[in-house]
Amino acid sequence: MAKKVITFGEVMMRLSPPGYSKFAQATSFELAYGGGEANVAISLAYLGMKAAHVTRFPDNALGKAATQFLRKHWLSTEHVFYGGDMLGKYFLEKGAVHRPSEVIYEREGSSFSLIAPGMVDWEAVLKDADWFHWTGITPAISEGAAMCCLEGIKTANRMGVKVSGDINSRKNMWKFGKSMQEVMPELVQNCDVVISSSRGIREIFGLGKAGDRFRTLAEQLMYTFPRIEKVVGKTRKSISASHQQIHGKMWDGEKYVKTERLNITHVIDRVGTGDAFAAGLIYGLLHYGDIEALKFASAACALKHTLPGDANMVSLENVLSLMQGDTSGAIRR
Amino acid sequence: MAKKVITFGEVMMRLSPPGYSKFAQATSFELAYGGGEANVAISLAYLGMKAAHVTRFPDNALGKAATQFLRKHWLSTEHVFYGGDMLGKYFLEKGAVHRPSEVIYEREGSSFSLIAPGMVDWEAVLKDADWFHWTGITPAISEGAAMCCLEGIKTANRMGVKVSGDINSRKNMWKFGKSMQEVMPELVQNCDVVISSSRGIREIFGLGKAGDRFRTLAEQLMYTFPRIEKVVGKTRKSISASHQQIHGKMWDGEKYVKTERLNITHVIDRVGTGDAFAAGLIYGLLHYGDIEALKFASAACALKHTLPGDANMVSLENVLSLMQGDTSGAIRR
Amino acid sequence: MAKKVITFGEVMMRLSPPGYSKFAQATSFELAYGGGEANVAISLAYLGMKAAHVTRFPDNALGKAATQFLRKHWLSTEHVFYGGDMLGKYFLEKGAVHRPSEVIYEREGSSFSLIAPGMVDWEAVLKDADWFHWTGITPAISEGAAMCCLEGIKTANRMGVKVSGDINSRKNMWKFGKSMQEVMPELVQNCDVVISSSRGIREIFGLGKAGDRFRTLAEQLMYTFPRIEKVVGKTRKSISASHQQIHGKMWDGEKYVKTERLNITHVIDRVGTGDAFAAGLIYGLLHYGDIEALKFASAACALKHTLPGDANMVSLENVLSLMQGDTSGAIRR
Amino acid sequence: MAKKVITFGEVMMRLSPPGYSKFAQATSFELAYGGGEANVAISLAYLGMKAAHVTRFPDNALGKAATQFLRKHWLSTEHVFYGGDMLGKYFLEKGAVHRPSEVIYEREGSSFSLIAPGMVDWEAVLKDADWFHWTGITPAISEGAAMCCLEGIKTANRMGVKVSGDINSRKNMWKFGKSMQEVMPELVQNCDVVISSSRGIREIFGLGKAGDRFRTLAEQLMYTFPRIEKVVGKTRKSISASHQQIHGKMWDGEKYVKTERLNITHVIDRVGTGDAFAAGLIYGLLHYGDIEALKFASAACALKHTLPGDANMVSLENVLSLMQGDTSGAIRR
Amino acid sequence: MAKKVITFGEVMMRLSPPGYSKFAQATSFELAYGGGEANVAISLAYLGMKAAHVTRFPDNALGKAATQFLRKHWLSTEHVFYGGDMLGKYFLEKGAVHRPSEVIYEREGSSFSLIAPGMVDWEAVLKDADWFHWTGITPAISEGAAMCCLEGIKTANRMGVKVSGDINSRKNMWKFGKSMQEVMPELVQNCDVVISSSRGIREIFGLGKAGDRFRTLAEQLMYTFPRIEKVVGKTRKSISASHQQIHGKMWDGEKYVKTERLNITHVIDRVGTGDAFAAGLIYGLLHYGDIEALKFASAACALKHTLPGDANMVSLENVLSLMQGDTSGAIRR
Amino acid sequence: MAKKVITFGEVMMRLSPPGYSKFAQATSFELAYGGGEANVAISLAYLGMKAAHVTRFPDNALGKAATQFLRKHWLSTEHVFYGGDMLGKYFLEKGAVHRPSEVIYEREGSSFSLIAPGMVDWEAVLKDADWFHWTGITPAISEGAAMCCLEGIKTANRMGVKVSGDINSRKNMWKFGKSMQEVMPELVQNCDVVISSSRGIREIFGLGKAGDRFRTLAEQLMYTFPRIEKVVGKTRKSISASHQQIHGKMWDGEKYVKTERLNITHVIDRVGTGDAFAAGLIYGLLHYGDIEALKFASAACALKHTLPGDANMVSLENVLSLMQGDTSGAIRR
Repeated sequence: MAKKVITFGEVMMRLSPPGYSKFAQATSFELAYGGGEANVAISLAYLGMKAAHVTRFPDNALGKAATQFLRKHWLSTEHVFYGGDMLGKYFLEKGAVHRPSEVIYEREGSSFSLIAPGMVDWEAVLKDADWFHWTGITPAISEGAAMCCLEGIKTANRMGVKVSGDINSRKNMWKFGKSMQEVMPELVQNCDVVISSSRGIREIFGLGKAGDRFRTLAEQLMYTFPRIEKVVGKTRKSISASHQQIHGKMWDGEKYVKTERLNITHVIDRVGTGDAFAAGLIYGLLHYGDIEALKFASAACALKHTLPGDANMVSLENVLSLMQGDTSGAIRR
Repeated sequence: MAKKVITFGEVMMRLSPPGYSKFAQATSFELAYGGGEANVAISLAYLGMKAAHVTRFPDNALGKAATQFLRKHWLSTEHVFYGGDMLGKYFLEKGAVHRPSEVIYEREGSSFSLIAPGMVDWEAVLKDADWFHWTGITPAISEGAAMCCLEGIKTANRMGVKVSGDINSRKNMWKFGKSMQEVMPELVQNCDVVISSSRGIREIFGLGKAGDRFRTLAEQLMYTFPRIEKVVGKTRKSISASHQQIHGKMWDGEKYVKTERLNITHVIDRVGTGDAFAAGLIYGLLHYGDIEALKFASAACALKHTLPGDANMVSLENVLSLMQGDTSGAIRR
Repeated sequence: MAKKVITFGEVMMRLSPPGYSKFAQATSFELAYGGGEANVAISLAYLGMKAAHVTRFPDNALGKAATQFLRKHWLSTEHVFYGGDMLGKYFLEKGAVHRPSEVIYEREGSSFSLIAPGMVDWEAVLKDADWFHWTGITPAISEGAAMCCLEGIKTANRMGVKVSGDINSRKNMWKFGKSMQEVMPELVQNCDVVISSSRGIREIFGLGKAGDRFRTLAEQLMYTFPRIEKVVGKTRKSISASHQQIHGKMWDGEKYVKTERLNITHVIDRVGTGDAFAAGLIYGLLHYGDIEALKFASAACALKHTLPGDANMVSLENVLSLMQGDTSGAIRR
Repeated sequence: MAKKVITFGEVMMRLSPPGYSKFAQATSFELAYGGGEANVAISLAYLGMKAAHVTRFPDNALGKAATQFLRKHWLSTEHVFYGGDMLGKYFLEKGAVHRPSEVIYEREGSSFSLIAPGMVDWEAVLKDADWFHWTGITPAISEGAAMCCLEGIKTANRMGVKVSGDINSRKNMWKFGKSMQEVMPELVQNCDVVISSSRGIREIFGLGKAGDRFRTLAEQLMYTFPRIEKVVGKTRKSISASHQQIHGKMWDGEKYVKTERLNITHVIDRVGTGDAFAAGLIYGLLHYGDIEALKFASAACALKHTLPGDANMVSLENVLSLMQGDTSGAIRR
Repeated sequence: MAKKVITFGEVMMRLSPPGYSKFAQATSFELAYGGGEANVAISLAYLGMKAAHVTRFPDNALGKAATQFLRKHWLSTEHVFYGGDMLGKYFLEKGAVHRPSEVIYEREGSSFSLIAPGMVDWEAVLKDADWFHWTGITPAISEGAAMCCLEGIKTANRMGVKVSGDINSRKNMWKFGKSMQEVMPELVQNCDVVISSSRGIREIFGLGKAGDRFRTLAEQLMYTFPRIEKVVGKTRKSISASHQQIHGKMWDGEKYVKTERLNITHVIDRVGTGDAFAAGLIYGLLHYGDIEALKFASAACALKHTLPGDANMVSLENVLSLMQGDTSGAIRR
Repeated sequence: MAKKVITFGEVMMRLSPPGYSKFAQATSFELAYGGGEANVAISLAYLGMKAAHVTRFPDNALGKAATQFLRKHWLSTEHVFYGGDMLGKYFLEKGAVHRPSEVIYEREGSSFSLIAPGMVDWEAVLKDADWFHWTGITPAISEGAAMCCLEGIKTANRMGVKVSGDINSRKNMWKFGKSMQEVMPELVQNCDVVISSSRGIREIFGLGKAGDRFRTLAEQLMYTFPRIEKVVGKTRKSISASHQQIHGKMWDGEKYVKTERLNITHVIDRVGTGDAFAAGLIYGLLHYGDIEALKFASAACALKHTLPGDANMVSLENVLSLMQGDTSGAIRR
C-alpha cells in the first residue's frame, strides 16, 4: 500500500507575467499556488504516495481556490483550515541567461502567519502517516508558525513518524522578533533527516568554520543532534538563469555519497527545484537504499527545472528513467 | 488652456478571472489598477483635462508598475510617492444576469493605508489646480488617510481650489477605530460639491428620516454645511447584473434637476461607473451649466458600463454625442 | 452533517472554440470536462454536500486529468476506475441569438461505454450515501452502462438510498441494439423521484396522448410505477440562444406546483442547465419542503446559464438569494 | 453542380483589440482579413457555392498569409496576384450599447490601390462563372481600381455572367480626384442587380427628392439604367451597438416586397453584415424565387451579427432554418 | 512549371497544452492538424511545389476544419473525402531537456481507418503528378488503409509516377491482425525511393544482422527489391529533448553519401522533423543531384525543429541558405 | 539630480506572432511600439535618467496609443506631435537556431516620414538636456526627417548638449532620392560620440580599405571629423538566432579598449539590443569613466537579449551586477 506523507506550511498565490515579460509589461498574471512544503507533498503524490498538506487559508473564494488547487494535484485537503483575511502571495518575474528571476513576497499578515499553537490536531493529522516534512521557511514566518511546527515535529516523534526538515539560511525572512539561531535548534534536534546547505549549517547552528566542506559540517551537525540519521545537500551551479547544474550529496554518519552532475541546459522554471529534491529524497529513502535515494532526489530535482509551476508533476517512470542514466529526453508515443 | 484636477486616494491592483469565469475556474488573472479617485482623474484626462493623482505605493516593481499604469492613462505621477511593503488589491469576479459580481479586497496594511499627515506637500500638489476630488473610501482606510485627506481639502480651500467629495455609506469598511459619523463631517463641511446617495446622507450625517427623498436630504445637508453649493446623486436600477438603468439628480440650493433614464442593456463592466459619473460631473461643472453638467455626468456614467476596467476611457466626443441623445451606438469609420 | 450524494455516468472532455468563434475559426480549444451526472455532483458539492462520482476513464494522462478536474471541483474520486483507451469527448461551438450552439459528440468506444456489470462495487459506493442520481443518457450509451446503472439503482433501493433519475427522450442516442422503450422502464420503476419532460413520458413509456399536459402525464407515470413519489419537470422557452426563460413544475401525487418564470436575458453558457436544475432539486428535497425545493431548483438552473462550463459553481447563498426573489445581480463587496 | 461566383476588391488585414477593449488598452490584436467583396465570396462558399476572389497583395509573407486566409475559407485564390509593398489595413475597436465601434483605415498606397487596367485577365477569371459581384468601395479606392472594376463588369456582360453591385454613399472615401457621381453611373448601368440604400440612390445619381421612399427611388434608378432587373435594400435600425433590427426590401420593376423585421438582441460583430446580406441575396436569386431570395438575404444578414470576423460562415441549414421562422437558436446536438 | 506531389494518409487533430505545461496543467489546448504524409505535402507546397493530399475525414464541422487547415497551408484538397464519425487525434505534451515529450494517440475507429479499397480513384488522383509519397504508418492503421495504399502505389507505378515510402518500425502500432512483416514487403517492392532507419530494415524485412551498418542494410534492401533506386536514412542524436543533432545518409546502389551534422541547440518542436526530411529529399531529388538532395533534406529537417506545429513552413530560401552553410540565423529585414 | 536625454526618430507599431509562430500561423499579433531612438530613451529612463522623445504620430487613437506606450515606459511625451495618417509599422517573425527572424517594414508615407524642418522647436526641446541622441535610420526615412535631425544636432551643438549618433549602413533603406554618402557626413561631423560598425565607416564615408580593422577606421573617422571624441563599436557573433556573443570596443583618440565577450546562450528577443548598447554607453559616459562606460554598454546590450520587446527595461542594479562579472542569473528574492 502506498506510503503517506504529511507536510505543513504556507501555500501562496503565485502570480507571474506570461513568458519572459517584466512586471512592467504584464497585463495579465499566470496564476498558480505554491509553497515549499506543499510542493513536496504534490511531488510525492504524483510519484504515487498518499499526501496531505496542513495549512490555513482565508475563508473566502480565494482560500477555497487555493484548496482546490491542492486537491486537483492529488493532495488530501481534509486538514486545511480557514481563518484570517489574506492569502500569502508571491510575484515571480522569470529571468533568462544573465537576467535573474525576481520574486516579490507579500505574506505579512497572511492567514497562515496568524496560525497559533493548538489550532492543528496533530494526532489526527499524523495518524497512519509514514513521514512528516517541514522546511525552515515555516518557523521564519511567525512565532505561531514556529510553535505549531514544533508541535507537529514532537507529535511525529511520539507517534513514530519519520521527520525531515529542509532548512536554509534566509536571514532576511526572520522578522517576528526571534532569530533563526534561537528557534531552529529545537526544531532540528527532533529530525531524522536534515536537508541543508553548508552555509545553512554554519550560519544557523554556528558549527564549523569558514573553509569547512559539507561532509565535515554534516558530521558536526549529527554530533550536535544525535537523532539525525542523514544530512543531505544539493550543489547547484548557476551557469546562468537558463542553465543550471546540480548534484546531490549525503552523509549518513558513516559514508559520504555524491551523485553525478546533471546538466539542465534549458531551464523552464527554476522555482521549486529544491522541493523536488526533498520530495525525491523522501520517496527514495522510503523505497530504496541511500545511494539510490540520492540519485532519485537528484533526478527529480533536475526534471523539475523543465516544468512550469512550483510543483514537480513528473511520473515515477520519468524519474527512474533519468536516474538510470537516460538523459536523451526522447519522445514517448 | 486645459483645466487641471488633483485626486487623492488608494490605487489597487485589480485581478480578475477572464470573461465570466468564477474564481474557482481561473488559471490566470487579467491585471489592471484602479481606485475611485484615480478612476476620476483618468476619466478626466481622457476628456482632455490635466490630471494628477496623489498616492503611495510600495517601492518595488509592483509599485512602479502601478505608477506606469497611471502614466499610460495620461496622469501626471509626479506626486506619487513610495513606501511600505504591500500594494492594495482587489479581486473581481464578474457576474451576469442574476449572478452578482463578487469583490474581495485585500487592502489592510497596504502602503497607502500607512500614509501619515505631513507626507504630502499639498501646496505643491495643488499649485495651478482647478479642482480637488476625494471620495469617502479614503478616510475609511486608516486614520492617517483620513487626516491626509483633510489636509488636502483644507489646503484646497485656502488656495481657492474647488473641492468635491463622493461620499457613500459603507459601514463595514470602517475598521480603524473611528466611525464614519465621527470622521466625515469635518471633511464634508469643506466641500463645494458633494456626491452622495440618499442613504449616505441619512446614515453618515443622521439627517432626514426614513421616507425622505433625495431633494429633501440634499437641502438638509446644504443647510448643515453651508459651503456646499451642490448635492448630486445618481439613481441606479439594477434590473440584473447585465442590465442597468441610471439617471442623475442634483440640488443646487434653488432648483432640483434630473436627467432622463439611460438604459444600459448589455453591461460589460459595472465597476467604476460611479467614478465616471463623478468625473463627468466635474468636467461638466467646469465647462457647462448645471443641467448640462448633470447630463454629461449621466452620459459618461452610462458609457463606462460598456468598457472593461475601472476607468472611463471614452472621448469627449462620445460623451457629447450620447448626452445629445444619440443612443444608437452606430459604428464610426 | 453534510448529506452525501452518489452519481454515475460518463464524463467527457469538453473542447470549445474561444468566445463565439466557429469551429472553422478555432486555433485553440478551451478545455473542461463534463457529463450530466457529474455536473449534478459538482453542483451539489458547491452547495455544501458531500459528493462522489462513479465513472471509468482510460488509464493515461488524459484520464488522470479528467479525474483531477473532478477532484478540483470537490468531488470524491475514490470510485473512479480506469480501463479502455479513449476518453469520451464533445465539441461545443457556442451560438448566439438566432445561431444555435452546435455539439459534436465522440463517445463511441469510450472507456465508459465499455463498462460492464460487476465492475462497480455498489455496496461500497453507496455506503453512507443519502441519494443516488442517474440520467437517461447512461443507459443509452451501451448495454453494459445500462446494466451497471440498474445494479446501482437496485443496490440503492436495497440500502435505503433515495434514487432520482433525470430521463429524456433522445432517440438518436440509442445505438447499441436496444430501444429506450425496452430499457428504461426497469430503471425508472425503482426511482423515488423522476425528472422528465412531457415528451419524455409520452415517448419512452407510451403514456398519455398528444394534447396531454405535464400533470396528467406525471399522474399516469406515478400510477404505472408506484414507487415514484414525485415527477418533476422544467419548461424552457428559448426566445433565442442568448435569451432563455425557465420555470419548474412538480406533481407529487397530490398537488401540482409551478414556480414563477425566470428570465435569463444574457445567456453565458446554456450547457448543463438541466443538470443544475436536477442538483437544485436534490438539494431542495433533502433540505426544504417540496415547493421550496422546486424554487431552489429553478433558481439554480437560472444561475447556471450565467456560468461558463458544464457545472454549476454558484454558492448556496447565491441560490437562496435568487430563490427569495432578488433578481438584481447587484455587486457584492 | 454548384454555381460559381467571382468577386473583386481589396482585402485588408483586420486588427482588433480583444473583447471590448479600447485601442488604448490593447497589448495584442486579433488578426483576420476582410473586405466587402471577399466577404461575399466567403459567405457564398460556406453556403456551398464555388467562389473565387480577384485581388492584389504585396509579394511578401503578409500577402501570402492573406491569401491563405481566403483559401482556408474555401475560396479559389488562383486569381490573386502580387505586387506593391503594403497590405491595406483596418483597425476595429468594438463598441457596445451606446459606445460606437470605431474603425481606422490605413489603405492609401496599398497594393490593391495601385492596381491598373489590364492587370486582370477577366476572360480567364470569368470563365464558367455564374455571377460577378462588386461593391462601391472598389471604385473609390483609386482610378485604377475603378477602371479594373469596369473592365470586369463589361467582360461579365459580354460573357453572359450576371452582375451585382452593392453601392453605398461614402463620400469621404473618394480621394483620388474623381467624385462618385462621375464614376459610378458607368459601373452601375451594366449591372443586373443593384443593392443600395435610398440615400445612395439619391446622392450618387441625383435621383428622387428629399422625402422619396425606397420604392420610388428604385423605380427611378431602373428607369435610368434599364439593364437593372432588381434594386434591393436593407433597413437597419440601430437601437444600440448591441441591438440591431434589420429587414430587406426589393423592387423588381413590378412589385415591391419587404421581409419581416429580424431582431438581433445581442450583437457579436456587426462588421460584414451588409456583405452577408448581399451574399444571401445572390444565393437566393440563383436558387429561389425573388421573395425567398430576399428572406434568405435577411436571415443571412441577421446571422452574421452573431459571428466574430468579417465573413458569414454559417451553413445553408442555419440560414434556411431562420428564414423559415425558427428564431429560437435552440442547441443542436 | 512547378512539379506536383501526391500524398496519402491519415490527418489527425493535434491537441497540445500551451508552452511546456503538463496535461495535468492544461485548461486549453492549442489546435492544429497533422499526419506524416500531409506534413510532407505541406512542406513541399511551402517550397513551391504543387501538392495534393488524399485522406478521409468525418462529414462534420471538425472534418471540414481539418480540410480547411490543409487548404490554408496550400494543399489541393479536391481528393479529400468524407465518411465515418471520428477524426483521429493525438495529444502532445511538449518535453524539455531530460523530460520527454509524451504523445497519446486516439485513432482507433477513425474515419481514415475505415477506408476501403476502391474508395479512391487513384488514376484521377495521380494524373499530372510527378511523385507519390506514403509512410509506414498508413498500412499499420487498418487493413483497408494498407490495401488502399497498395492500390495507390501500383497505380503510380503504372502511370510512371515516382514512389517514395518512409517506413519505420513501430511494432505496437500494428493491431489489426496482420504484422508489418506480412504487409510491408509488397508495398516497399514497388517503391523507387525508400527512407528507413537501420532498425526498420532489420525488423521489417529480417535483413542483415545485429551489428550491420546502414550502408550494408541498404544494399541488401536494394538487392531484395530491385526497383528501389535509393535508400535514405537520417541519424538523430538526442542529446536532450531540447538539443538534437542530425545528419542524412544515402545509398544509391553505387555510392554512400553522408551530410555534415547539424546541431539544433534549441528545439522548438521536434514533431514532424522526419517528415520535413522526407519532403526535403523529394524536393531535392526532383530539383538537384543526389548529394545536394541529401543536404537539402538535412537542412529542411534541421529547420523544422525550430517551428511549432507538424509541418515545415520554411521557405526555399531558408533551406538553401542553411544547406549552403549559413548557420547564423541572422535576422532578415 | 538625474541627467536628461533627448532622442528623435520614428516609433513604429510592432506586430509579432506569438512565440515562434510563422506569419502564416498567426491569428493574433502581440503589440508593442519601438524605434531605435525611443528604445534608447526608454532604456535610459529605466536606468534612472530623465528622457524625452521627439516624434510625430497620426492624430488618431493609434497615434495616441503609441504615445501612451512611451509614457508608460517613463518617457516625457510633451514633444510628441501629431499629423499625417499612418503609423509606421514593422512585423516581426521570431526565428530560432538556424531559422532567421524576419522583419517586414511598412513605413513609407508614415506620419513621421512626412516631418518637415521647422516642425520641432529644438530650443524648447533641448532646454535642460544633457545629451541628444539620433541614429542613422532617421535621415534614411525622408529628406524632411534628415533635415529635422540636422536641425536638432546643430541646436544641441549650439546649446552645449552632447550629441551621439548611432550610424549603420543600410543602403536599401535610402529611397527618398539622396544617398547615405551625401547626407550623413554633415550629420556626423557635429557629433561628439559616434557608434558605428567598421563597415559603416567604410561604406558611408569611404574611409579605410578592405582589411582595415575598427581601430584604424575609427582613427580615420576622428581625423575626418575632429569634433568626434569617441568612436564606439560592438562586435556580434551570431552563432545562431538563439545564441549570440557580443563585446564592445572603443577608440577615444588615444587608447583602444575592448570588453570581454558576453555569451548569450538563450536569446529571447534580439531586436533592440544595439539600442540597449547605445543607451548603456550614454549612461556610462555620463556617470563613469570610458572603460566602465563600455563595460556598462556591453552588459546592457547582453541583458536586452533576454527581454521581449524593443526596449531594455532592466534596472541599473541588473546592469551593474553583470558588468561586475556576475553572469549567474541567480534568482533574487
